[in-house]
Amino acid sequence: MKYCSACGSTVEISIPAGDNRPRHICVECETIHYQNPKIVAGCLPVQGSRVLLCKRAIDPQYGKWTLPAGFMENGESLEEAAMRESIEEANASLEALRLYTVISLPHINQVYMMFLADLTDADYSPGAESLDVRLFKEEEIPWDEIAFKTITYTLEAYFVDRKTGLFPLHTSIITRKNR
Amino acid sequence: MKYCSACGSTVEISIPAGDNRPRHICVECETIHYQNPKIVAGCLPVQGSRVLLCKRAIDPQYGKWTLPAGFMENGESLEEAAMRESIEEANASLEALRLYTVISLPHINQVYMMFLADLTDADYSPGAESLDVRLFKEEEIPWDEIAFKTITYTLEAYFVDRKTGLFPLHTSIITRKNR
Repeated sequence: MKYCSACGSTVEISIPAGDNRPRHICVECETIHYQNPKIVAGCLPVQGSRVLLCKRAIDPQYGKWTLPAGFMENGESLEEAAMRESIEEANASLEALRLYTVISLPHINQVYMMFLADLTDADYSPGAESLDVRLFKEEEIPWDEIAFKTITYTLEAYFVDRKTGLFPLHTSIITRKNR
Repeated sequence: MKYCSACGSTVEISIPAGDNRPRHICVECETIHYQNPKIVAGCLPVQGSRVLLCKRAIDPQYGKWTLPAGFMENGESLEEAAMRESIEEANASLEALRLYTVISLPHINQVYMMFLADLTDADYSPGAESLDVRLFKEEEIPWDEIAFKTITYTLEAYFVDRKTGLFPLHTSIITRKNR
């Protein structure tokens, strides 16, 4: 950020009065431009013993497998965001969403919020951001070709929990070091 | 947003290629400026049969009671954000944080994420944004003077759950209509 989005003047970085960390502040209109983490909302769609994965048609991680997920938009609830991503990436309708993994990624200013969900019918197909969409049994999961550590974490939790039939909330922090 | 924060030129609102909703786009450098919901992270500090509330020294809702909570910062985990807010607003140290309520507020582009937590010692005092900090038993809670619906929701869930001793995750959506 070099310019003020409110008045177009230059911004400088300093600590505002009463604050304790550097912010982008306009030298002219004094607007403080805060920057905050973004939410990535998504889901783990389940049908019987199988889960739905999408093969990415975009960078980063083109060609790797992932769960439907993306940046939450203004005006949405978390559940709406997760369902929208499932439609956009896999043309898959969901029901019975329950929050399952919450993962902070402080090094990239993101928080993943993934919902367990039931696929409502057998229809699904690749959206614009997917090369392929498929259902996988546990033994078919391409563990070496999963796009993101957050997705591996969520899938691993699910297959462990399925042994007990209990799916409690899992919270985690993935940093640069342990990603 | 009227000006591009990258180059200072004018922005216009239109739908980028491959997107499906209006964005602020720079007419000169073509940077797309996304806007996304913010996370409010906080906690419900518990000590025995009492919970800690803060009396707000700032607007909105000056003079009303709330739980320690505020905007999550870049570079933090959710848990770090919740603990920082408790220090800043109540000089209260916490331990054993467990995520308890997750509340979408689509009309103001926020998601509240509140943790149940244990007060680690008897020391606490008002921070710069608080007029007062006190421990309340259930029958002492000033229900008519709670600052935000998200806080009322969290406190109500807690006192119901305490009857059973089980504190499952609660997710909710508060809209303009039901706030």
